[in-house]
Amino acid sequence: MPFTAIFLLLGLVSSANSTFTLRSPNPMRFMKEPPKLVNSYVYETHYIDVLLDHFSFADGRTFKLKYLISAKFHEPHGPVLFYTGNEGSIETFAENTGFMWEHAEELKAALVFAEHRFYGSSLPFGNETFKDVEHFGYMTAEQALADFASLIEYLQLTNENFTNAPIIALGGSYGGILAAWFRNKYPNLVAGAIAASAPVWMFPNMSSCGEFNRIVTDTFVKSGSEECRQVIATVWNSIQEVSKGPAGLQFLYRTFTLCKPLVTVQPLIDYLVDFVGLLAMVDYPYEASFVGEFPAEPVKYFCRSLNALSSADQPVDVVLRTASAVRSVTNYTKQQKCIMIDDDLPGLDVKAWDIQIAAVDALFKPFFNFTNQHAYSNGDLDPWSGFGVQRQEDVPQCHVIRIPNGAHHLDLRASNPLDPADVIDARKQELDFIKTWIREWKAT
Amino acid sequence: MPFTAIFLLLGLVSSANSTFTLRSPNPMRFMKEPPKLVNSYVYETHYIDVLLDHFSFADGRTFKLKYLISAKFHEPHGPVLFYTGNEGSIETFAENTGFMWEHAEELKAALVFAEHRFYGSSLPFGNETFKDVEHFGYMTAEQALADFASLIEYLQLTNENFTNAPIIALGGSYGGILAAWFRNKYPNLVAGAIAASAPVWMFPNMSSCGEFNRIVTDTFVKSGSEECRQVIATVWNSIQEVSKGPAGLQFLYRTFTLCKPLVTVQPLIDYLVDFVGLLAMVDYPYEASFVGEFPAEPVKYFCRSLNALSSADQPVDVVLRTASAVRSVTNYTKQQKCIMIDDDLPGLDVKAWDIQIAAVDALFKPFFNFTNQHAYSNGDLDPWSGFGVQRQEDVPQCHVIRIPNGAHHLDLRASNPLDPADVIDARKQELDFIKTWIREWKAT
Repeated sequence: MPFTAIFLLLGLVSSANSTFTLRSPNPMRFMKEPPKLVNSYVYETHYIDVLLDHFSFADGRTFKLKYLISAKFHEPHGPVLFYTGNEGSIETFAENTGFMWEHAEELKAALVFAEHRFYGSSLPFGNETFKDVEHFGYMTAEQALADFASLIEYLQLTNENFTNAPIIALGGSYGGILAAWFRNKYPNLVAGAIAASAPVWMFPNMSSCGEFNRIVTDTFVKSGSEECRQVIATVWNSIQEVSKGPAGLQFLYRTFTLCKPLVTVQPLIDYLVDFVGLLAMVDYPYEASFVGEFPAEPVKYFCRSLNALSSADQPVDVVLRTASAVRSVTNYTKQQKCIMIDDDLPGLDVKAWDIQIAAVDALFKPFFNFTNQHAYSNGDLDPWSGFGVQRQEDVPQCHVIRIPNGAHHLDLRASNPLDPADVIDARKQELDFIKTWIREWKAT
Repeated sequence: MPFTAIFLLLGLVSSANSTFTLRSPNPMRFMKEPPKLVNSYVYETHYIDVLLDHFSFADGRTFKLKYLISAKFHEPHGPVLFYTGNEGSIETFAENTGFMWEHAEELKAALVFAEHRFYGSSLPFGNETFKDVEHFGYMTAEQALADFASLIEYLQLTNENFTNAPIIALGGSYGGILAAWFRNKYPNLVAGAIAASAPVWMFPNMSSCGEFNRIVTDTFVKSGSEECRQVIATVWNSIQEVSKGPAGLQFLYRTFTLCKPLVTVQPLIDYLVDFVGLLAMVDYPYEASFVGEFPAEPVKYFCRSLNALSSADQPVDVVLRTASAVRSVTNYTKQQKCIMIDDDLPGLDVKAWDIQIAAVDALFKPFFNFTNQHAYSNGDLDPWSGFGVQRQEDVPQCHVIRIPNGAHHLDLRASNPLDPADVIDARKQELDFIKTWIREWKAT
């Protein structure tokens, strides 16, 4: 039973057309640039030496792991909100986790954002890190969790203010899985965990493969319209039709303003499938620059650009309007000259993630107990929610928070006047859980 | 906070004399020989290749891990009772875990006994295994658990009878810790865990250091007598007194029939402290040859040999009677010519255990959640119970079984006409838990 099977998800909304190659959604391909720092939160950047292999003592090699810290409001032995970093530079997650910044003062908490090994600048072998398996072979979730444990032990050893501090793990997406695992594996160090939009069941035999696409489709109907869904369903065949004509690939290259000419049509289709999935994932009610620059309500925005189309249109017309609609989003900030659709020049972090996913069969053990002091939140708009914990009855000892109008870990972002009421309520619940766990920790 | 601190337990019943060196109890020093096969259970011996380092994919080296299997009563997809081997040859534990053998037929279960890496014949580098840290650096509890997981996955892959089989982990002592950890870490593979006499809290800040000695003392009062306790309390000073006289060490050497002359008195005292602790630990109601050959009720037996002594006796008399009493136990089978008190020639497994204990600071993360499908049993006679789970209110989701008249994992041993009623009841409870967990596993 190969573990990779689950990642071969059917290209989303393309389910009407079975000719497309089965492949894994990879919205991270859009995160090629360092984040634009919009919030300018103030933190210090530090590095600690951690073991390359925490699970043998035959190998004493260490490397420098980055973490960010803000202790402005920290009272001695007061709480620590600890972000368990995921697949990217930790600054990205610090910038986009306003929830932690907004409650530091009230909780008298320190904030710590820990980078995940093999991402950002926590590269064990510098430029050689991805050279071969002997270098990147230490990039596993369990090693990353042990890094986080080492960091906490280091902070408690070197700074008296951290002694006996109740530590709350927080994370979104893959970082949310890590937050839940972290509380589970190191209950002596971690008082509780907020796992936002964490696809903890995205593993073989744990979820239906079609969930991702089903939710993307639902989100397009809900945030866009049924007509929008119908139009998009015609896009895939239209592109294939057009590609077969004379100079078809050249036409697609120019129409979509791609950075490089097309050799086959498949990379364009793969790109658009990921793009549509990404829009659902980041369907925030306001402008955001988390995994790219997007307008408010990007699904509605995209559908509006498509709305002149009808499903009876000719393939060429469909392609022209689709390209125009895509560009209206991708070039929303007028900064992008062309669309880079392939992985010829992926960012380092995209490469790392691809390697990590490929290794999942061998190393990732995605099973854990769902115990107390865990809260799982999921937004219904977010296609990843199909692999998340959504039903209270599945995990009677945990807290489950559903956010009907929420996109991918919207609840961890900074509050915004455009936030839907249900995300405001989710944040309130999460804050209450955190306060309870802090009290419980202090009482023991 | 050095993790090793907890192992520096005060020499037991020597608490009255603070001049003794603080050290760790090491009853395993008595287990130098392969076990005498008394039960002659029938099993097959196999080996599988497992990864040396399960937590990186940079290192592809493997070694052969031994396991024993008995599938005589196994029905297809029926339960598997899986012994999580501890610090010694797995045959020892197979021979001394009659509980599993006695219920195989009723449960229609297969029995699997998995050896712990770096013990028995599961030596990753053969004769070179303990050469240096680059060889023995992979001897950790987490790696051993991953070995067990690999073994289960292998069995399920190669033998259809193991598909979807409910697997119950069982272990005693350190193996009991592993059984509990195993269910905790791999809930997808393990349906429940019986952790017998598992000192899960024998780690810094988790238990009182004096517990071991306190319970040894209690057991000597309970199984021996208050007089016996008082006499033993005079032994330590008497030996020191005698050692200071002319030819005192020579006298002690001859009186105790040691294999090697003494250079200082401390090794003899250390040996006797461990010896007294061991008697409490193996205070079984019948003859047993688990970690040495012992008469039935060894504490009572030893105390009876001491009973002519009074605490008013001269040191030389105390030494003579003590030596006689010790020899009456150690040479109970008349096979032992002399007493080996030091670690000059320890068995390989003793060496491995010493290394593993020394590494605990760096690698062993002794914390886990106490969730359901776990049962913890402890015998009140057993000094290790001071580090075990004894109170239901500490672990509301687990099952706690106390055995007032039980020694070290007596409940896992084969039934015997001399078993106290409370151990019979404990085994019945454990069997009921196992049946419940099997039902629950099949229902999901």
